[in-house]
Amino acid sequence: MAEKIKAALMGGSGYAAAELIKRLRNHPHVELVRVSSIDHVGKNVGQVHKCFGDRLPYILEDISPKELVAGCDLVFLAIPHKVSYLKVPELLELGVKVIDYSGDYRIRDVAVYEQYYKTTHTNPENLEKFVYGLPELFKNEIKEANYIANPGCFPTSVSLGLLPLAKNGLLKGKVRVIGPTGSSGSGVHASAGTHHPIRSRNLKSYKPLFHQHQPEMEQVLRSAGGENISVDFIPISAPLTRGILTNSIVDLPSSITDADIQKIYTDYYKDEPFIRLVSPNGLPETVNVAGTNFVEIGWSLKEEQCGSKSFAAVCAIDNLVKGATGQAIQNMNLMYGFDELAGLDDFGTWP
Amino acid sequence: MAEKIKAALMGGSGYAAAELIKRLRNHPHVELVRVSSIDHVGKNVGQVHKCFGDRLPYILEDISPKELVAGCDLVFLAIPHKVSYLKVPELLELGVKVIDYSGDYRIRDVAVYEQYYKTTHTNPENLEKFVYGLPELFKNEIKEANYIANPGCFPTSVSLGLLPLAKNGLLKGKVRVIGPTGSSGSGVHASAGTHHPIRSRNLKSYKPLFHQHQPEMEQVLRSAGGENISVDFIPISAPLTRGILTNSIVDLPSSITDADIQKIYTDYYKDEPFIRLVSPNGLPETVNVAGTNFVEIGWSLKEEQCGSKSFAAVCAIDNLVKGATGQAIQNMNLMYGFDELAGLDDFGTWP
Amino acid sequence: MAEKIKAALMGGSGYAAAELIKRLRNHPHVELVRVSSIDHVGKNVGQVHKCFGDRLPYILEDISPKELVAGCDLVFLAIPHKVSYLKVPELLELGVKVIDYSGDYRIRDVAVYEQYYKTTHTNPENLEKFVYGLPELFKNEIKEANYIANPGCFPTSVSLGLLPLAKNGLLKGKVRVIGPTGSSGSGVHASAGTHHPIRSRNLKSYKPLFHQHQPEMEQVLRSAGGENISVDFIPISAPLTRGILTNSIVDLPSSITDADIQKIYTDYYKDEPFIRLVSPNGLPETVNVAGTNFVEIGWSLKEEQCGSKSFAAVCAIDNLVKGATGQAIQNMNLMYGFDELAGLDDFGTWP
Amino acid sequence: MAEKIKAALMGGSGYAAAELIKRLRNHPHVELVRVSSIDHVGKNVGQVHKCFGDRLPYILEDISPKELVAGCDLVFLAIPHKVSYLKVPELLELGVKVIDYSGDYRIRDVAVYEQYYKTTHTNPENLEKFVYGLPELFKNEIKEANYIANPGCFPTSVSLGLLPLAKNGLLKGKVRVIGPTGSSGSGVHASAGTHHPIRSRNLKSYKPLFHQHQPEMEQVLRSAGGENISVDFIPISAPLTRGILTNSIVDLPSSITDADIQKIYTDYYKDEPFIRLVSPNGLPETVNVAGTNFVEIGWSLKEEQCGSKSFAAVCAIDNLVKGATGQAIQNMNLMYGFDELAGLDDFGTWP
Repeated sequence: MAEKIKAALMGGSGYAAAELIKRLRNHPHVELVRVSSIDHVGKNVGQVHKCFGDRLPYILEDISPKELVAGCDLVFLAIPHKVSYLKVPELLELGVKVIDYSGDYRIRDVAVYEQYYKTTHTNPENLEKFVYGLPELFKNEIKEANYIANPGCFPTSVSLGLLPLAKNGLLKGKVRVIGPTGSSGSGVHASAGTHHPIRSRNLKSYKPLFHQHQPEMEQVLRSAGGENISVDFIPISAPLTRGILTNSIVDLPSSITDADIQKIYTDYYKDEPFIRLVSPNGLPETVNVAGTNFVEIGWSLKEEQCGSKSFAAVCAIDNLVKGATGQAIQNMNLMYGFDELAGLDDFGTWP
Repeated sequence: MAEKIKAALMGGSGYAAAELIKRLRNHPHVELVRVSSIDHVGKNVGQVHKCFGDRLPYILEDISPKELVAGCDLVFLAIPHKVSYLKVPELLELGVKVIDYSGDYRIRDVAVYEQYYKTTHTNPENLEKFVYGLPELFKNEIKEANYIANPGCFPTSVSLGLLPLAKNGLLKGKVRVIGPTGSSGSGVHASAGTHHPIRSRNLKSYKPLFHQHQPEMEQVLRSAGGENISVDFIPISAPLTRGILTNSIVDLPSSITDADIQKIYTDYYKDEPFIRLVSPNGLPETVNVAGTNFVEIGWSLKEEQCGSKSFAAVCAIDNLVKGATGQAIQNMNLMYGFDELAGLDDFGTWP
Repeated sequence: MAEKIKAALMGGSGYAAAELIKRLRNHPHVELVRVSSIDHVGKNVGQVHKCFGDRLPYILEDISPKELVAGCDLVFLAIPHKVSYLKVPELLELGVKVIDYSGDYRIRDVAVYEQYYKTTHTNPENLEKFVYGLPELFKNEIKEANYIANPGCFPTSVSLGLLPLAKNGLLKGKVRVIGPTGSSGSGVHASAGTHHPIRSRNLKSYKPLFHQHQPEMEQVLRSAGGENISVDFIPISAPLTRGILTNSIVDLPSSITDADIQKIYTDYYKDEPFIRLVSPNGLPETVNVAGTNFVEIGWSLKEEQCGSKSFAAVCAIDNLVKGATGQAIQNMNLMYGFDELAGLDDFGTWP
Repeated sequence: MAEKIKAALMGGSGYAAAELIKRLRNHPHVELVRVSSIDHVGKNVGQVHKCFGDRLPYILEDISPKELVAGCDLVFLAIPHKVSYLKVPELLELGVKVIDYSGDYRIRDVAVYEQYYKTTHTNPENLEKFVYGLPELFKNEIKEANYIANPGCFPTSVSLGLLPLAKNGLLKGKVRVIGPTGSSGSGVHASAGTHHPIRSRNLKSYKPLFHQHQPEMEQVLRSAGGENISVDFIPISAPLTRGILTNSIVDLPSSITDADIQKIYTDYYKDEPFIRLVSPNGLPETVNVAGTNFVEIGWSLKEEQCGSKSFAAVCAIDNLVKGATGQAIQNMNLMYGFDELAGLDDFGTWP
């Protein structure tokens, strides 16, 4: 067996980081060698992510990028937006490959990024070096990439639900998307929005029509062929821990049939190992994909009304796996020519 | 004080029935005198709805409509679709007022009803005697009514979110609605869809674009002035007990401003005691209205895209109160000239 | 109708305060006139406890005790331990009756209080003026009281489960108590222990055998006749919002029979309006009493083993109602000669 | 690498079966070759346990024991109590090793079994061939065993919490145990007890002091050295999916110190790969072990009261892993000389 590549993790205290630490341990071709953090410095990862107990050797270290990636081939950045663009320039000079979880290198149009993230991007010159890491759309580009902008959780789910339409020239005009999400997406820090007495009984939409994932969805769908599209997106805080269920409604030409849809989706995803098409005989459920990198996609096509057929694409993912760490590993697998399923071929906790 | 009117309840074993029994007990002008049921016959309501303990005198009786309403002014029908139309003819002959929770007398177009409910309506001749009991739209009609078709939970929420637009001639074309809902809407009987190990961790869309509440929404919105509209509706099973949060997205003319919206909503609802407009400085949350007849409505208006402005109306209700029993009581209050808030001016359990 | 008494609330930002504001609004003999707070100063209570919307007139004011109770007969102290003993001396001088939610005036032995609460009590001289407000044990004393130390939530549940034994001379030796509780008991502030991604999936014992409610339970049970007793108490954080279920196991003489138990419990509680004895044909459930002042008590008596019969008393209460505000109102009702059920005769939200 | 052993699974429709199918797929030394069931016959396991999608080859077959184990070394019986004793005789004649999840071969005293399980055991002659599969107590016996009675979930948790005491002659007299548990322990079939609107808000003790796991706990603890002991056990239905937290309180001699306890526990478990001792600086949490075979054990020792020191042992396990399938695999690993962690060295889904 070939020697394992060596990876580092910048930002070890969050939930997506825990998922990465867990999954790289089981990966046949990668060794995680070092984890940095500015929180819980000096603690073993098992003191922070208590599922690990004392079985892992990683200490959260407050070290420089250079120290972090010494001897490494690859670094995962599980750090927040607006921090990533401060770290990336040095990392690129250090000659290490980068998979960035943040939104900083996803949006090509800096003005749009700055509008939605309310900041000034200090490293726009590196934007074009990053490939948007959605394997079901950019597999070939990812295979050649050194730098990956790992997609957002909602854009992943929405894009996967609509890519077959976009690729077949059927995605036009306004796309309406509403998606409830679990509380793990809010991160490890307790807040009013995750306070159990309220959150466990609540449904609440937030940032309706102006969430920062909206332009990211538009960029992806345009890349895939969406014409003159505009995405209207409403996320909803829901009382579960893991999972996103996006529901996207669009207009399709009245000539489209159920059989057309089934063929378009089946053809587009026929070689994708993580995609499960569950319609026409079923519908996606987040519980089926929770804790996994798998994706369930379903749909419904309505009779013509007002001159067009309404079509709904429903997509279920785990926000921390296919919506973050699982996709990051899938990207790494592609970059290095590993089996795309390596480290990801598992079924979570059922039920 | 005037003598109390006397009410009966047909169908006492469900959750909406429990809500009615509880609320009528506190109502200043009504006395619930009798409860029928075909389940749990002979039991006290406290053995079925265990919150009541032994404090209530009602026994679930399997009695005829005639026996049930003897001496009563009014009967609430908390019985399923397809059963209601079998009971209503006799009740009308008995001369009692009726508030029907089922869908049987809501849809004016029998063909549409039969298509969505997959049955043959055996009592279409009485359809026009029923008033659709949405007080925020049909208050005057309800005041004169003897027979009320109490609205569905989702149509209530969607309609309340969009009525001001419809009334102002701004609702046209396709209306996209997605709404997560709590498990109490699935009723008292355990089923795969409410099995705790799954439901507590799951998000699942069901009947996307073909739910039976879709034509009901269209009928209401057309009544209110919606032009050439078509509603595309996706409900989502979410892991909470009580609450519905509907998110409706429509196109508005590019000339509409935030100030216009605020004026339209404020004007329309200025005299409605149960409506809380929480935007532009907030957004609806189901936890705020759970267990109550109150409604939170919020919105977001986006910049022009593709030639129109997208607008989202978000509405939070309790599915068993404003979505069922609370609205039934509100209707009764209007029919009899009671204070509209009687029996409904409470705040549920917080948190 | 007699004029209403006037009450003030010190500490309006917590969950128990919200419960009080809600319940006093419906109380036939009391008017809440003023609410103080050091958090959210200047806000309407509906901005903090969002269930209230804009229907209530109360503003959270940072005012002195004197200003707070001006013109009032009674003040409720919904303030933390260690703050109460700083406020009580002035309130007593102001001549107002006091119902204190905190633990500061519950424990008669100052040394024990100081050991468990890790503080120095600065007002021990007023301790003996306070009556411990457990109506099912001290009803006569409460009727004569001006100052009430409102019991802790766990001591209420444990005491109610065991009082009949203690009163009949059957409670001796070690009492083992284990009780899971809901997250609303942790208060309104978000914390690691109430962070939804963890709390919603967790069971965790805390302060096992050294919780501050342990000596309070011992004091109550000794007052009721418990001989040479020692309480071993373990609370458990459980993933629900409201409810406490205490399970207490003790040794009883081998001569005791099921019929004895049933007689003892039935006799003791025969006039208590909030107590429901659900055994031998059932067992307590928190869902049945959530949001209410009612109490469910059940039990099990085992065959003799090792020379005695083990007996389990199970008790379910709502931690914020019978465990806090409901009991406070019940105490007020007794102090003023109101109907004991006034403001408390409701059934919460079901389900 | 040596050839894999071949295993069969009798009873593939339950949650513990799903856990086994999932874990054997990742086991380096075992191949699951066949799965029988009397439910969902003819379906792929992924249609029943939807997390599997279409990635697994197993069809649920209604076949005879002989057909099921053809060519197999080992069979796991994930079938109910009272069914197991009907199947075991034939399986033993077929010469296959057996790991039985049911309670049928755990209790050595047939009379006790029949009293608690309310049945007549038709195969008592094989009882003594079965080894009770608790590796932390019977590791050597398991290594030599052909037939394993896999322990119950509650007895596993309680025993692990108390074994060090029993082994050191410190466990005597009455043992009081109270343990909340998740809903997955109730199985795959929807029932009133797992109906989401109720279960998600409820705490309910069941079978207090007469649960069938009580005599199993006594047998294990006596085997380990418990003298004249009697276990009083109360399980509690709690609103989470996975996890058991048992709290056991016993009397210890007044001479015992914290240091003694720590030494006793540390010594006893020093070579056990799945046990985490989290006290004195922490306490067990089910969320830390959910979805894993790991166990968290903590404790508290109180000052002398009434002539003895009360001691609490708290233990957290996952009911379907260490409480069922994980332990079954651990037993298999020991029987075949595999690494004890094989197929079990993972951390579940966090959070």
